[in-house]
Amino acid sequence: MEVGNGVYFKLMGVVEDLVQPSDTKIVLVVLDGIGGLPVDRERTELEIAETPNLDRLARVSATGLHIPVDYGVTPGSGPGHLALFGYDPIEHQIGRGVLEALGLGLEVRETDVAVRGNYATVEYRNGKPVVVDRRAGRIPTEENRRITERINREIGDLDGVEVKVAPGAEHRVAVLFRFPEPLPEGSDRLRDTDPQSVGKEPLDPVPETPQAERVARVAGEFLRKVSEILRSEKRANFLLLRGFSQKPKMRSFKDRFGLRACCVAVYPMYKGLASLVGMEVVSFEGNTPEDQVRILRKVWNDYDFFFLHIKKTDSFGEDGNWRGKVEVIEEFDRVLPQILELGPDVLAITGDHSTPSKLKGHSWHPVPLLIYSPYVLGGTSSRFTERECLKGELGIIPAKKIMNLLLANALRLKKFGA
Amino acid sequence: MEVGNGVYFKLMGVVEDLVQPSDTKIVLVVLDGIGGLPVDRERTELEIAETPNLDRLARVSATGLHIPVDYGVTPGSGPGHLALFGYDPIEHQIGRGVLEALGLGLEVRETDVAVRGNYATVEYRNGKPVVVDRRAGRIPTEENRRITERINREIGDLDGVEVKVAPGAEHRVAVLFRFPEPLPEGSDRLRDTDPQSVGKEPLDPVPETPQAERVARVAGEFLRKVSEILRSEKRANFLLLRGFSQKPKMRSFKDRFGLRACCVAVYPMYKGLASLVGMEVVSFEGNTPEDQVRILRKVWNDYDFFFLHIKKTDSFGEDGNWRGKVEVIEEFDRVLPQILELGPDVLAITGDHSTPSKLKGHSWHPVPLLIYSPYVLGGTSSRFTERECLKGELGIIPAKKIMNLLLANALRLKKFGA
Repeated sequence: MEVGNGVYFKLMGVVEDLVQPSDTKIVLVVLDGIGGLPVDRERTELEIAETPNLDRLARVSATGLHIPVDYGVTPGSGPGHLALFGYDPIEHQIGRGVLEALGLGLEVRETDVAVRGNYATVEYRNGKPVVVDRRAGRIPTEENRRITERINREIGDLDGVEVKVAPGAEHRVAVLFRFPEPLPEGSDRLRDTDPQSVGKEPLDPVPETPQAERVARVAGEFLRKVSEILRSEKRANFLLLRGFSQKPKMRSFKDRFGLRACCVAVYPMYKGLASLVGMEVVSFEGNTPEDQVRILRKVWNDYDFFFLHIKKTDSFGEDGNWRGKVEVIEEFDRVLPQILELGPDVLAITGDHSTPSKLKGHSWHPVPLLIYSPYVLGGTSSRFTERECLKGELGIIPAKKIMNLLLANALRLKKFGA
Repeated sequence: MEVGNGVYFKLMGVVEDLVQPSDTKIVLVVLDGIGGLPVDRERTELEIAETPNLDRLARVSATGLHIPVDYGVTPGSGPGHLALFGYDPIEHQIGRGVLEALGLGLEVRETDVAVRGNYATVEYRNGKPVVVDRRAGRIPTEENRRITERINREIGDLDGVEVKVAPGAEHRVAVLFRFPEPLPEGSDRLRDTDPQSVGKEPLDPVPETPQAERVARVAGEFLRKVSEILRSEKRANFLLLRGFSQKPKMRSFKDRFGLRACCVAVYPMYKGLASLVGMEVVSFEGNTPEDQVRILRKVWNDYDFFFLHIKKTDSFGEDGNWRGKVEVIEEFDRVLPQILELGPDVLAITGDHSTPSKLKGHSWHPVPLLIYSPYVLGGTSSRFTERECLKGELGIIPAKKIMNLLLANALRLKKFGA
């Protein structure tokens, strides 16, 4: 059915339709925020780091850089990872509530609406609450935990809807409403209840679509109950909600690419992002790259695709601590030979975005990318650094195309056309 | 009428609307499957070949690499060439039947439906055919020729529809149904008659659209007659059909680019692909690059655009014979000065895809590209190789944009906007 296929290709994307079975194994290492800028007026964090193993690998690999979202666009962790997983990060946007929930370790399902919350202080005037501090004086995280636990214990059932509140740092929480069955699209179109300034009354969770009415009723009842539970608290006596959102509709990684994929990550956010696309999250003891490689070895026979996430490169970058970032790079370099010993057919090393210590935050800069397989030219770059990767055979490519290259190098794609 | 023009541009593509007349001449040399990978752990076929003329040209040319279809996508010959001719290979997909027909030397018109066939062996049980060998024991090509000739001689007229069967290798054929007038779109939406496994009855060519009903009647009648003709054969006593398809609707090369274009190719497939976009196919004696350049000289005054196709680089690559591929590259290098002597305004040298000997087949790797004209920077690459082209001024570009560059370098495009 040639013509039928033709139409299908245009609708669904070429690559999914070329996927063929294979027993090759792909490892994707994400050094979070790996890209950098010169920190000593000359060299970037990657250039300063002593990385004999990475250097050796770079010399025989395909190298280049990727642009996570678009030229000049600084990505958050959500779009950065979705793009690496082969999903268009503009087409598939993850709502704030869902991202916050994932980051705080909540699993998000198709039956759920998630929302960010912050504890606030209100005064009751004529029986009506008026916000006097939107952050409840930035209560200590410990106090947040205690209060959140109280809510989870006392809130009870909400008309058959399960509610989970997860404590974050200081005044922040994530709230998850789990309905008995999957919700129609548009169920998350509710207005924030945070009035955004003091001296005002908290708002109701007003639905903006008919589908959101049920969620609005449940959220309204939840907030009413919470305000009763918190009435006795001194500072955090109210909860404001922002960013209601549902899990975005996405075909699963397995369905699109035919890969049994797992995630070996330490932080909840990255486990959550991997689970959003249907990867299995592997639990393990420890939190160092060495621990992660040990678990990789343990589950090596169970999967085709291994997403290994190293967080600390980004954390130190965010702190502006370039020495710390350099040390994490060198720590990864020491475990790299153990990954190679497993004999992956394809090994990719990159980041989800750049986090230059100089900027103390995520940035828009293209991210170094290395792909090692038997089917590369190699011989173009002497190291895995921003400037050496510029010389490589991959050029500067959109991040969402990296999966195509990993599948191709793993000989998991058929020929297109005859 | 800015908006009107704006809409027009979006619908029809910018470049066609900028085309202006000129008497400049463009030569496009396609060294089929030219891109490679290291074969001796270090050098690719292009790097091993001794190519003094290509080297000299590369030093004064614009160089780069192109991606035929998309990152990681391995193209067949069809999409590879359409992209080089400036047609989006995903938008314009050539059906299997049409491609097979072109490859076996049949001309395909707008009145035609083409389909792939394979001779099969059936047993008649209770008067009904049951497939016992889908490939008729892979009969020798000679036997195929004899049987095909019998069918063409004996089939006669099918309700005003002309039928042509072309023999391929072993059990393979292409069948062309030529109707008296152009067929509506969707006339090729018929199910395959090949049941895909032995022990089953061959299927009817069931129409999936109302437009396909007429073709289904003709194909059904054809198959009925063929089964009678072949009844006396021992092995090839039945014909199974797969991949009914029509010539894709495309604006012609001449209409889009204002170029009188010709094709100088040895193999039917490439003549067929060129004729699909409306190039004139030049007939000539001989089959070496030298013969092809001789004919180029002969028709030099008759055309503006010359598509010269060299096949053997791909053939040796497919065989994994890198020495053979190197020799063809060197053979081409020796005739290159004769092409330059003709004084083309623009000379482009590239491939339709990569065929690394290491992979013994087409691959997804970017393809070296060289454009020689008076209007290039040059001075970036010392040779025409994968790695030297990476340093070039063209970067890594989509193949479908190459025609833009050839037209621009031939001063055949007006300014866009004021």
